[in-house]
Amino acid sequence: MIWKYRYGRPFETDAVVEHVKAAEGSPPFGTVSLEDGFRYRYELPKDAVVYGLGEAVRGINKRGHCYVSHASDDPHHLEGTRSLYGAHNFIVVAGETPFGLFVDYPAKVVFDIGYTAADVLEIACQEADLYLYVIEGDTPYDIVRQFRRIIGRSYIPPKFAFGFGQSRWGYKTKEDFRQVADGYQNNHIPIDMIYMDIDYMQDFKDFTWNKENFPDFPAFVREMKARNIRLIPIIDAGVEVEKGYPVYEEGVENGYFCKRADGSDFVAAVWPGDTHFPDVLNPEARRWFGGCYRALTDQGIEGFWNDMNEPAIFYTPEGVREAAALLREYVTDQAGTVSIFQVREALAGLQNDQRYYESFYHRVDGRMVRHDKVHNLFGYNMTRAAAEGFEQIDPDKRFLLFSRSSYIGMHRYGGIWTGDNKSWWSHILLNLQMMPSLNMCGFLYAGADLGGFGDNVTRDLLLRWLVLGVFTPLMRNHSAIDTREQECYRFERVEDFRHVIGVRYRLLPYLYSEYMKAALSGDLYFKPLAFEYPEDSFTPQVEDQLMLGGEVMIAPVYTQNAKGRYVYLPEEMLFVKFMPDGSIHEEKLPPGHHYVEIALNEVPLFIRAGKCIPLAEAAESVAELRTDSLVLLGYSGAAYLLYDDDGVHKDYKDPANRKLLKKTS
Amino acid sequence: MIWKYRYGRPFETDAVVEHVKAAEGSPPFGTVSLEDGFRYRYELPKDAVVYGLGEAVRGINKRGHCYVSHASDDPHHLEGTRSLYGAHNFIVVAGETPFGLFVDYPAKVVFDIGYTAADVLEIACQEADLYLYVIEGDTPYDIVRQFRRIIGRSYIPPKFAFGFGQSRWGYKTKEDFRQVADGYQNNHIPIDMIYMDIDYMQDFKDFTWNKENFPDFPAFVREMKARNIRLIPIIDAGVEVEKGYPVYEEGVENGYFCKRADGSDFVAAVWPGDTHFPDVLNPEARRWFGGCYRALTDQGIEGFWNDMNEPAIFYTPEGVREAAALLREYVTDQAGTVSIFQVREALAGLQNDQRYYESFYHRVDGRMVRHDKVHNLFGYNMTRAAAEGFEQIDPDKRFLLFSRSSYIGMHRYGGIWTGDNKSWWSHILLNLQMMPSLNMCGFLYAGADLGGFGDNVTRDLLLRWLVLGVFTPLMRNHSAIDTREQECYRFERVEDFRHVIGVRYRLLPYLYSEYMKAALSGDLYFKPLAFEYPEDSFTPQVEDQLMLGGEVMIAPVYTQNAKGRYVYLPEEMLFVKFMPDGSIHEEKLPPGHHYVEIALNEVPLFIRAGKCIPLAEAAESVAELRTDSLVLLGYSGAAYLLYDDDGVHKDYKDPANRKLLKKTS
Repeated sequence: MIWKYRYGRPFETDAVVEHVKAAEGSPPFGTVSLEDGFRYRYELPKDAVVYGLGEAVRGINKRGHCYVSHASDDPHHLEGTRSLYGAHNFIVVAGETPFGLFVDYPAKVVFDIGYTAADVLEIACQEADLYLYVIEGDTPYDIVRQFRRIIGRSYIPPKFAFGFGQSRWGYKTKEDFRQVADGYQNNHIPIDMIYMDIDYMQDFKDFTWNKENFPDFPAFVREMKARNIRLIPIIDAGVEVEKGYPVYEEGVENGYFCKRADGSDFVAAVWPGDTHFPDVLNPEARRWFGGCYRALTDQGIEGFWNDMNEPAIFYTPEGVREAAALLREYVTDQAGTVSIFQVREALAGLQNDQRYYESFYHRVDGRMVRHDKVHNLFGYNMTRAAAEGFEQIDPDKRFLLFSRSSYIGMHRYGGIWTGDNKSWWSHILLNLQMMPSLNMCGFLYAGADLGGFGDNVTRDLLLRWLVLGVFTPLMRNHSAIDTREQECYRFERVEDFRHVIGVRYRLLPYLYSEYMKAALSGDLYFKPLAFEYPEDSFTPQVEDQLMLGGEVMIAPVYTQNAKGRYVYLPEEMLFVKFMPDGSIHEEKLPPGHHYVEIALNEVPLFIRAGKCIPLAEAAESVAELRTDSLVLLGYSGAAYLLYDDDGVHKDYKDPANRKLLKKTS
Repeated sequence: MIWKYRYGRPFETDAVVEHVKAAEGSPPFGTVSLEDGFRYRYELPKDAVVYGLGEAVRGINKRGHCYVSHASDDPHHLEGTRSLYGAHNFIVVAGETPFGLFVDYPAKVVFDIGYTAADVLEIACQEADLYLYVIEGDTPYDIVRQFRRIIGRSYIPPKFAFGFGQSRWGYKTKEDFRQVADGYQNNHIPIDMIYMDIDYMQDFKDFTWNKENFPDFPAFVREMKARNIRLIPIIDAGVEVEKGYPVYEEGVENGYFCKRADGSDFVAAVWPGDTHFPDVLNPEARRWFGGCYRALTDQGIEGFWNDMNEPAIFYTPEGVREAAALLREYVTDQAGTVSIFQVREALAGLQNDQRYYESFYHRVDGRMVRHDKVHNLFGYNMTRAAAEGFEQIDPDKRFLLFSRSSYIGMHRYGGIWTGDNKSWWSHILLNLQMMPSLNMCGFLYAGADLGGFGDNVTRDLLLRWLVLGVFTPLMRNHSAIDTREQECYRFERVEDFRHVIGVRYRLLPYLYSEYMKAALSGDLYFKPLAFEYPEDSFTPQVEDQLMLGGEVMIAPVYTQNAKGRYVYLPEEMLFVKFMPDGSIHEEKLPPGHHYVEIALNEVPLFIRAGKCIPLAEAAESVAELRTDSLVLLGYSGAAYLLYDDDGVHKDYKDPANRKLLKKTS
């Protein structure tokens, strides 16, 4: 049962695509006050778990912190962080009578979940212009599926996107990329993608490539593709202000950029220096920007990542002018009223200053909308632009696409990566905990920067993290410039990396099948244990294990120097470890608590009682994967419904895509 | 067996007080190179645990990170942090043939412990002027005890210091302190100390108090003491530059401050603005500075905390001049060669700029020693100054004293608190993991800011953290200005806080007894499990449980929303929970892995097979504790050797202090 409440004059975000009848009166759970913006309040039952919020710090259970939905370029994902890149306003309160809430409001939303008062949920928006969806269901899982139904089908990437990808901020030349390809392929570590961070561009200009480093770009794309490697370039939100640069000229000429209040094009400085932001909330501008991707697809590119689209702003000319005025005042001020520390503070505040976001406008349905009122929709609509562009470029073909910033609704157009995390052990667990929350909000194609983006990795950290990454739809090793080099082949005993990533490819038929089934049926790929075992009173507190699809449970090791970990089994399961010698350790474990040993170079998973999963032979790329020689791992007598397709086109409903496999021995 | 190697011309730190015969040749483990400063290298056996390093981030096992001993005022205690406030250069490599290393070198020391290469330990000092102690022993525990013997007896505080203390940066007036005293005592939450952070001083001047807020300071100290509450003021390293301020005048007149190269007094700005640093490495200046504490002890003060003694430097006049010049250049520079971002960077770098530390000097034995060469000794010697001062003020009396910065050797003069942590769940675990490491380095009186200093606490976080704090010798709730108020009485259901802190007082006879026995015999108060159970192959990886004294194991809950935790028992133990209704849950658990339920308001501990511990009746302050009505908790037939004394004087060897208690029923 879903109720849709309308307050004031909501902005139409297109998050919900299925018709939901408007409800009258007060919501069946909690109380709403409209005296000071919008305020929702609900007394949380003592042990109620609160699920949701997608991309956010802390546990699967969001209780005990205050979160602010406000797309933010913040590379410090700490326990106290309140805002990350995405704004995913869906929660499920799992008390005796569970219910879900979706706050469809594109500006800042505060979720105080037992933070100020341990047993009170409070949701606040500055303005009471929004839709509130209230969903009732038998279980939290049921509520999530109802929600997923109304927000529409999740994005489906091409199959190669389930391979392993390597990235690093700093790859610049053809030789850099070849070195990575060689490093992997000469060591027989499987790889399908190499990501191109900002340095591939000509002076950081979107939809260009550096002519000196790539004199014949399409030939280079072909060269890599012949090696079964896709190059995946980054696209940033800001378009450089440069006379003669076609994207800039077209945008200016047609009024496709965000405007200042006086109608001039808003200037924000990012990597290239001064840029304009494409007004992706304006359908016409969105169509134009989406079309720009053709400049690269024409060269053979089949996938992109959209970045800096919170949008991040290093500074604006106005901001710099103001700071410079303070500097001048400090220098000329005889009375000493301006201190050097005021200057320091002003300069430190130049980046992502909230005032910037209140100083530019979108054109929506003929009216000007101030950016901060719709802030959380920018990344969403930049990604929608790209997806709609691809639809024009080749309607039958799937493109790889994921974004840093997002809002619910964007899940139909692309995936996400979880942004600039760090090479910290705690970020393995954070990665794991975010996955089901993202799934609940529709984001199925998702993953974190394996090994960590900022800070310096160690061999053991990378290995343990990759073992989680084996199971995340997006499996990418990415790191920041000036950190320790993090490509797998740079570490001692490369065979361990070959083995771990190799297991990903052996499992790929299963992972792909479960991904597709989840996407096509509005289901979850990753689930909290409590969703699968709602009668089990222990599962609500399990924060470091996940159900994957219908057959598997994962429980990776995420602490340094540990030789294993505790694991909770709600039912009997087959404990499987892919051993570095190629053998498979299988051991039936009874329900309950266990300590299991898992070495650095072993890949563990658990198969549910009576189930089995398909396993492919080793392969070094998705293209080389053979799906005609699958074996089944698990309980004998079990059956598995395999989904498979060509991984390129969109004929998902072809009955030939589904095949029942039976494990006889 | 201990070898002492001398390289070059070491600075005498007085860390080691027992004579160790000089050794010749090469150390029995690892290799030393003197080609580029001092470099020590050792191939780590595959599973060797590395213990030690005292105050440092990450686990009890330090393997897998790079640590830099360099006293640093850094409030961000993250996984990647390399330096905290203390510099504790003692490690134990626990391989098949265990050995310990103490690098007695007062400048920066880099410990690369399986970070660059997973199986290599490398220790580097910029100059090869140091003592290297190598200690061989049967077990890591044995090695630690040998080390503790040569560095001398750990500091012993007065008994009241084992009570609970409340602190917050921001308490200012008598009324502020009375409110805290009332908040606790009216709610019957035990309390023994209220800490005075910087705002009690007159304009942040050491050894003063604000005359307006405390018109009759000694009367106020008496008023509080009549309520069984000690006021514990902070003392900062920097002495304000102010004509007429006696401490400043005396220091200048006698040349007791650190000097610039030109012989003028070095100026560093901290809380009061410009200050001079007392040259605590110069014995004469140290004697003078220690004597200054009398200004407060004469008012009835019996304890202090020494802060900002890395020493922290906000800026120097030279630093500001240089930055201001860049500002002027930016403003006047027509060519635009200086960017506003260079200015930003220069201003951001004003705090704790390494160059400051290379620009001032200590006078030691008649020669000038540049500060950075002996940087890690400053907090140590400031605290030594105080302790030696107390010895003059009242040689028979124990004073409470602890410091932020420290070096091994300081453990004889005072305790430490672990500095500006945060209200993060991960910092409960960090607190736990630091404790045994600190103990190994001699620091027995230690604790973290319970509830977290920076960031905002929640009720559940504070409760769970206090449950760990019940067992740490220093039990103090402290928080930063502008964070959420964190005094226990500010939260819902105050009875839970009353109960948890009440359990501390019931356990106090045991905790004090174990502390005293550890201090008097050079033993550990907190131990890793592997020290007590060296034959148990699982214990080396237990990172979230500690042995406390001879009888107890602790295993607090440190994850939000958890209802319990896993625990490993190397032998049968009695699982005890102090229940909020005053009852005591007792349950014998067999050796092995267990999941145990522990509610937010329960205090758990484990008593080793065949042991018992004394338990007092509830009391609201140490003064009110009755030790004549102890009961014994644990195994019947067990005996416990109680140490007790008046908690004020120093007659530790009085045989009347030791009493054997037997549990008959």
